[in-house]
Amino acid sequence: MARNIQSLERAAAMLRLLAGGERRLGLSDVASSLGLAKGTAHGILRTLQAEGFVEQDPASGRYQLGAELLRLGNSYLDVHELRARALVWTDDLARSSGESVYVGVLHQQGVLIMHHVFRPDDSRQVLEVGAMQPLHSTALGKVLSAYDPVAHTEAVDNAHEAFTPGTVTSADGFEELLALTRARGWGSDVEETWVGVASVAAPIHDRRRMPVGAVGVTGAVERVCKEGEVRPDLVAAVRDCARAVSRDLGAGRF
Amino acid sequence: MARNIQSLERAAAMLRLLAGGERRLGLSDVASSLGLAKGTAHGILRTLQAEGFVEQDPASGRYQLGAELLRLGNSYLDVHELRARALVWTDDLARSSGESVYVGVLHQQGVLIMHHVFRPDDSRQVLEVGAMQPLHSTALGKVLSAYDPVAHTEAVDNAHEAFTPGTVTSADGFEELLALTRARGWGSDVEETWVGVASVAAPIHDRRRMPVGAVGVTGAVERVCKEGEVRPDLVAAVRDCARAVSRDLGAGRF
Repeated sequence: MARNIQSLERAAAMLRLLAGGERRLGLSDVASSLGLAKGTAHGILRTLQAEGFVEQDPASGRYQLGAELLRLGNSYLDVHELRARALVWTDDLARSSGESVYVGVLHQQGVLIMHHVFRPDDSRQVLEVGAMQPLHSTALGKVLSAYDPVAHTEAVDNAHEAFTPGTVTSADGFEELLALTRARGWGSDVEETWVGVASVAAPIHDRRRMPVGAVGVTGAVERVCKEGEVRPDLVAAVRDCARAVSRDLGAGRF
Repeated sequence: MARNIQSLERAAAMLRLLAGGERRLGLSDVASSLGLAKGTAHGILRTLQAEGFVEQDPASGRYQLGAELLRLGNSYLDVHELRARALVWTDDLARSSGESVYVGVLHQQGVLIMHHVFRPDDSRQVLEVGAMQPLHSTALGKVLSAYDPVAHTEAVDNAHEAFTPGTVTSADGFEELLALTRARGWGSDVEETWVGVASVAAPIHDRRRMPVGAVGVTGAVERVCKEGEVRPDLVAAVRDCARAVSRDLGAGRF
């Protein structure tokens, strides 16, 4: 097998570096973080800057991510069939449930939010398209881990950080959760990622019956749950939505 | 001056190619579009795929943009000071005007939408963050062209496509529009880009008095205009918003 192109791998590592942690870095920081000579790092940064992937603050000389990434990320959304098929059904779900709706796909070691419909009220909400959620504690992540073997491997291989007292951190406990998710056909997260927040999610399948994503609602635990359990009418609405999107993607009805 | 890195430039050209037009391309299409040997193109595509910037459809073998671009684009938004400062003020503007609000910055030959607040009603709306708008016909684009010399050069250097019968396509006509925009301190677009749609926008300045972006409202021409002119109360609200964001960015009050 041919080798990948080193300068491209280094450029990708720089973009990941600028996407996490500090986010505004000088040349020396970038070079030392990636173990590169300054001249090598500068050549890559200069090219990335010329292409719009990186911007340099004129005052401080520090580098940060560039606007071209936003434009390309938007083009990625435009071309994504799952998101296109989900638009109408998730709007309906947000309206009928009165809660926020998210569509997520497996990306690297987590859930990438592809689509987010705001809770239909007048409250101020922040769009989370492009944000990542953990696999082991969220409803979307559990559903992906339960149905997608690659997601399962990623979830198992990574440490299960305890975000709240309710987060399941043991390997056995996690497998039990996934078995329950598969048995019921849906997953939940009752204060396992954020205190006070509960979610329910169901899998989306494509025409080859592959699990290509998950859709779910998220809201205050007081609204989403009743007597400690996710409200059955919300579960039904989420599963209806997941089935509708799956059918639009060509999945069989049975 | 040192040369930029060729493999990086080629990779960026591939991503731009996949972001426009066809969007799902086979190896031969990519190679011939960029004038590369197939083996060269394949090495770059394979590396881009390994880094998540490109995905390959298992059925057709065609390439499309990858999810990592969405994640990085979201990180770009997180780090962008203009957007962070604009969040609250643009929410207020959408509420008070009852119309959609956009924040745009100059990117390449157009306006990149950094932030979009939906019109506060129950209608179905599509988020346009990451989308591009033309410089010569939109309110945001005219404001950027009037205040930012780089935007002005980009606007002048590119052909002025007629999107509607109202689009100003002549160089002299465009300069007159910009002079008017500077004289009034705000720009408008009355059915010059989309039939039935009107916008008004004002410039945002930073602490060095540089024009770093523009904010505007967009809506049905019947609501935004009165007797063929943009409603003065909307103009005032947009300019108030632009001043508030500029002040938050450190611009002086005078």
